[in-house]
Amino acid sequence: MSEPSVSDPSVSEPSVSEIAVSEARAREGCLAVIGCGLMGGSVARALRRARAVEEIVGYSPDPEERALAVALGVLDRAAETAAAAVAGAGIVVIAVPVPEIGAVLAEIAPALGSEAVVTDLGSVKGEVVTAARAALGPAFAQFVPGHPIAGLEKSGVAASRADLFAGRRVILTPVAETRGRAVLQVTSLWEAMGAEVDLLTPERHDLLLAATSHLPHLVAYALVDTVRRQLIASEIAQYAGPGFADTTRIAASPPGLWRDIALANREALVAVLRRFEETIHALGDALEAGDGEQLQRTFQAAQEARVRLGNAAVGIDAQGQ
Amino acid sequence: MSEPSVSDPSVSEPSVSEIAVSEARAREGCLAVIGCGLMGGSVARALRRARAVEEIVGYSPDPEERALAVALGVLDRAAETAAAAVAGAGIVVIAVPVPEIGAVLAEIAPALGSEAVVTDLGSVKGEVVTAARAALGPAFAQFVPGHPIAGLEKSGVAASRADLFAGRRVILTPVAETRGRAVLQVTSLWEAMGAEVDLLTPERHDLLLAATSHLPHLVAYALVDTVRRQLIASEIAQYAGPGFADTTRIAASPPGLWRDIALANREALVAVLRRFEETIHALGDALEAGDGEQLQRTFQAAQEARVRLGNAAVGIDAQGQ
Repeated sequence: MSEPSVSDPSVSEPSVSEIAVSEARAREGCLAVIGCGLMGGSVARALRRARAVEEIVGYSPDPEERALAVALGVLDRAAETAAAAVAGAGIVVIAVPVPEIGAVLAEIAPALGSEAVVTDLGSVKGEVVTAARAALGPAFAQFVPGHPIAGLEKSGVAASRADLFAGRRVILTPVAETRGRAVLQVTSLWEAMGAEVDLLTPERHDLLLAATSHLPHLVAYALVDTVRRQLIASEIAQYAGPGFADTTRIAASPPGLWRDIALANREALVAVLRRFEETIHALGDALEAGDGEQLQRTFQAAQEARVRLGNAAVGIDAQGQ
Repeated sequence: MSEPSVSDPSVSEPSVSEIAVSEARAREGCLAVIGCGLMGGSVARALRRARAVEEIVGYSPDPEERALAVALGVLDRAAETAAAAVAGAGIVVIAVPVPEIGAVLAEIAPALGSEAVVTDLGSVKGEVVTAARAALGPAFAQFVPGHPIAGLEKSGVAASRADLFAGRRVILTPVAETRGRAVLQVTSLWEAMGAEVDLLTPERHDLLLAATSHLPHLVAYALVDTVRRQLIASEIAQYAGPGFADTTRIAASPPGLWRDIALANREALVAVLRRFEETIHALGDALEAGDGEQLQRTFQAAQEARVRLGNAAVGIDAQGQ
C-alpha cells in the first residue's frame, strides 16, 4: 500500500474532520466491508475517493458479487469469509439487511482487533443494538450503530456511487457502553463522505423513522387496500385524481421489503400506528356526530403543520431521496 | 338576441350532441346561472363559446361579483334575485356551495317554467338529491343532479375559463323521478362544453368520491396530526422524506372546505373511514403478533392495485386536475 497523496483534486482545503481521519489513518488504514451491494459498495467508493482509507477488503456471500466488486475496483480484494475480511481491519462496515446483522457480528467477533471500530447501515436501530450486544460481548463497546438516510431505487454493487451520501444525513445511535473515540472515528468517516451526522438514541431514531417513513408506507398500503375492496378497478382508474395518486404513491413500494422493515421496527411502529388508529377513530366519531368543530380542529392543526413543512419537504424531494 | 351563426371557428363538424343542443335551443335559449364564481362563470363561458345558448342571465348574492361577471362578458345581464334570473330560462345551472343548494332551489321553484331543466355542480349528490326533492316538489322531475370532476386552485368569476371542463368527466346522478329528456339535455350541454358524461346513482357517486377523494384527505390530515403529536417540528422537517411529503401533500388543503365536504358526504365517508380503520387495526394486530404473512398479503394486494393504477393516475396528474 502506498501512502495516499496529500490532496484529492476534487477536495479543497482539509477540514477538521479530514484531519481527524488522517490522524486515525495509521490504525484505520484497512476498511472491511461486509455486504458488497449498493450501500456497501457506495461506502467503499466514497471512502476511496476521500482517500480516507488505504486498503478495502470485502466479503459477500455471493462469489459473483465479490468478484464483480473487485473487477469494478470497488474492493482491492475479496475475502472468502466475513471473519477473514475483518482480520486486520481498522474499520468494519456491516452493509447487510437488518435481519442478518446479528449473525454477521457473531461471525466476525472472534476475528475483530481490539482497536477496530464496527458500524452498520441498518434502517432500524433498537433491534440492531440488541443483536449487537448479544453477538459482540465485550467488543460491543467498539460498535457504533448507524443509519445513512440515503438510497437509490437500484440495488447491487454495479449501482454503487461515491456520491451516494454527499449532502445526506446519517444518524448514529451510540449507547452508554459505546466508546467515545469510536463515535468520533465513524463521524469523521461519514463527514469525509460528505454526509451530515446526527447523534440520537436508538429509541428516538426508531420513533422518527416509524413516524416519518414506516407509518406513511403502512397508511398508503391500507388506503389502497380499503379502496380496492370498495370499488372496481376501472372506477378507481377513472375517478382517482392526483390527490389519491399522491397519497398512495408509496404503496407501489416492494411489499417484502416493507414487511421486513415493519417487523424490524415493530415496537416503535406499533406505537405510532395505534396513535394513528385513534386519530382515525376520533375523526369517524366526529363525522358521525356531525361535529364540524372537531373535524375543523384536527384538519387545521394538520394543515398548519403540513404548510410549515412545505419548503423543507420540497427541498428533500428535489434531491430525489 | 340574434340567432347564433352556424359555426364557431374553433369547432369543426357539428357532432350528434351539438345537433341535439341545436334542436333544443328554441326552448333552452336562455341560460340562468345561480352563483357566478369560478364554476358558474366557467359554465357560462363554455356554453357561450359552444354557441349552445342565446342569452346568459346570472345571479350572485354579491352585487360586485354580479357586476364583474357582466363587465367581463360572462353574463349578458345580472338579475336582482335568483327567482328573477330563472324566469323565462330554459336551462338553470346552480353553482353555489352544496350546503346552499337546497335554499336556492326553494327560492327559484315558484319562478321555474314547466319545461325548464335544472342542474347543479355539487360535489356530493345524496344530500343534494334529498334537498332538491324537498325544495322543488313536482318540479323535482326537472332536476338533473350533476358533478363535474374539475376545478382550479383559484376561485371567483375572474378565474373562470371556457375550457375548464374540456376533456373532464361529469357525473350525472338522475333518480327514478328524473325526466329522461332532461337528462339528455344536460348531457348534451356538457358534451358541448367538451366533457365526457357518466351516469351513476347518487349513492355510487358518493361512495366513489368518498373513497378516491374524501378518504385520502382525511387520512392525510390524520397522518400529519399523528406525527406532529409524536415529534417536534424540526425533527419532521429534517427527517421527513419524499414518501412523507407525497402521502401528506393534500393535508395542506383548506380545512374549512374539507370539513364541509366531509359533513356533506357524511354517510358514505363514515362507511369507508370505518373500513379503513379496520384495515389499520388489522395491520397493528399483525405487526404486534409478528405475523409477516398477514402484512405481506395486505401490502402485496395494495401494491398490485396501485401499480395497475400507475399510468391512469399519472395521466390524470398530467392534466393538473
